[in-house]
Amino acid sequence: MIQLNRIPALSAVVREEDADAMLLTGEVNLIYITGLTALEGQCLILPDDTAVFVTDGRYTEVAEQQLRPRGFEVLTRSNLSGMYDFLRSVLEQHGVRRLMYEDDVLTVSDFALMREQLQLTFQPIGDRIRRLRACKSPEEIACIVKAQRIAEDALSRLLPELHAGITEREAAARLNYYMALGGSEKPSFDTILLFGENTSKPHGVPSDRALREGDFILADFGAVYHGYHSDMTRTVAYGHATEEMRQVYETVLAAQEAAAQAAREGMLCCNMHEAAMHVIEQAGYGRYFTHALGHSVGLEIHETPVASPRCEKPLTAGIVMTDEPGIYMPGKFGVRIEDMLLIEGDTPRDLTAFPKALEILAV
Amino acid sequence: MIQLNRIPALSAVVREEDADAMLLTGEVNLIYITGLTALEGQCLILPDDTAVFVTDGRYTEVAEQQLRPRGFEVLTRSNLSGMYDFLRSVLEQHGVRRLMYEDDVLTVSDFALMREQLQLTFQPIGDRIRRLRACKSPEEIACIVKAQRIAEDALSRLLPELHAGITEREAAARLNYYMALGGSEKPSFDTILLFGENTSKPHGVPSDRALREGDFILADFGAVYHGYHSDMTRTVAYGHATEEMRQVYETVLAAQEAAAQAAREGMLCCNMHEAAMHVIEQAGYGRYFTHALGHSVGLEIHETPVASPRCEKPLTAGIVMTDEPGIYMPGKFGVRIEDMLLIEGDTPRDLTAFPKALEILAV
Repeated sequence: MIQLNRIPALSAVVREEDADAMLLTGEVNLIYITGLTALEGQCLILPDDTAVFVTDGRYTEVAEQQLRPRGFEVLTRSNLSGMYDFLRSVLEQHGVRRLMYEDDVLTVSDFALMREQLQLTFQPIGDRIRRLRACKSPEEIACIVKAQRIAEDALSRLLPELHAGITEREAAARLNYYMALGGSEKPSFDTILLFGENTSKPHGVPSDRALREGDFILADFGAVYHGYHSDMTRTVAYGHATEEMRQVYETVLAAQEAAAQAAREGMLCCNMHEAAMHVIEQAGYGRYFTHALGHSVGLEIHETPVASPRCEKPLTAGIVMTDEPGIYMPGKFGVRIEDMLLIEGDTPRDLTAFPKALEILAV
Repeated sequence: MIQLNRIPALSAVVREEDADAMLLTGEVNLIYITGLTALEGQCLILPDDTAVFVTDGRYTEVAEQQLRPRGFEVLTRSNLSGMYDFLRSVLEQHGVRRLMYEDDVLTVSDFALMREQLQLTFQPIGDRIRRLRACKSPEEIACIVKAQRIAEDALSRLLPELHAGITEREAAARLNYYMALGGSEKPSFDTILLFGENTSKPHGVPSDRALREGDFILADFGAVYHGYHSDMTRTVAYGHATEEMRQVYETVLAAQEAAAQAAREGMLCCNMHEAAMHVIEQAGYGRYFTHALGHSVGLEIHETPVASPRCEKPLTAGIVMTDEPGIYMPGKFGVRIEDMLLIEGDTPRDLTAFPKALEILAV
């Protein structure tokens, strides 16, 4: 559980936007405000640094124990009263007429229902919470690092077990299993685990392709700890690597390190992408690097800002950004190497500890 | 892959709603229209029984091979052109001025962007696709059954391996692993696997609670096959069961069977719930059955209609509805038994093959 008190920061947003309250119903923002992952309910943030958490009987005990001591008012709605009927009375009691809502969480039909049921003036939250979430606290970074260590331990356990004939699907299943045993709440996203020519697909899905000597093995995966995601990619060779495989690998690694060296507080995100692209272009592989360099990571696997050629937002302290260049040669193979970087000052902190020198697994 | 041609049914909706086209961008509806799970893009349905699938270079090959022969026009957008710039030209070319959109998929901010970018008259799809999706074809049922068999095989493999001291978390990890090895694309939802007093939490999360003799073991889980979900729950005892445990178990089983016997085409969903509730109330446990009896299952784990006390929609042929009553006694234990029923005529087809008589695992 993350113990930080985020009510004041969100209350400040309500005041700055001249609203009377903010209503959070989406899973991710509820984890952000409460620090708890296994809780359902709605949270109302008021401008006076207070918050009201509305839940039902299933979660009353945990909400009372964990949230009340941290300044939340906890209300339990009976199963008989509809959610909006209950919320309406809470909103009336607090004199709320102008309500901020999660426009990037609620669907158009969810919002139509909310509008009809609550009859208030609505104002979108926009990117106000996303901007707060972009800057990770030490507690959040500790969770991301823990998730990352779980993922690394799982890969360390898997690699020596890989053998000719094992399928991508089975290897991926085993990697997910080891992460779960290590304490991961779930895979951070659908695990990408590919062999040989399939490694040229940036978003390939594990298939029945069996491992053969001379294949590259590409694993892009992550764990989740207290709601926080990790993300890493490693590419290793099985048995041996050709000269071309080595050359491509070294190019991707140099690009990955160039971006890490370039990354600093205040630079534009697109320039981080360019630092990696420059190395790949110089080596003559420019047309094979077909995606953005990276994305922010936190309570969601893809957060903003992103290290793409078009993102002109600044890198600010506390962002955790992936650095994941790749070279994909259709029909042959692909290489991607990915670490997570914590932006701070002139030198980012690499949250990934797994080695990056080309590993050739014994057959 | 599901080979059904669904373009005509969706084209008919466009005509009935007096629109010029329908735009699908959500993952689930794209699987529904294409039958393919690993494809990204946007699909435009026109009123003349044609569809245009817009994708990018990553998916051109598969779209050309799989969709073109089935009547889709396939267009590949270069990575340089923005999605909406490309879509705008396609929409202009087809003279689209009134466009149906996925109001239950797009967020308020997604839709605001779409509106700004496309400058058309927009009309919500509402429940028109959900209603079509509620009635499963034989091909879809085959996928749900396959997912169900994968889940059953995984449970059959897990149960004899359970031993005193194994944690809920480890048992859940192993169950997920066996489903993945069996061909499940992912767990149908976060696997619920609970021991002893934790079984009284309908939505409990696997913890470090270790298995002990005399515990109930409750597993609620499912597999995914070609995008189709399964859902089952079994409760078994470890070592022995008290008289009270047996009595509660038999009550839940009788309620579950009563609902299955009641379920028939044309009846209201709420009456299916009532059939189970009646048995539980008669046995004196009414206040411990605290949730709705069931929900429809398909490309999403929770579809409509639902077998809840408030759902006055009719059960229609082709609906796959879960039948999952439970009795939850806080601090003691809970029992839930769940099958999936295919509604057809006067007698539903039980898609679940796993035995339901109370199983006492050997210690």
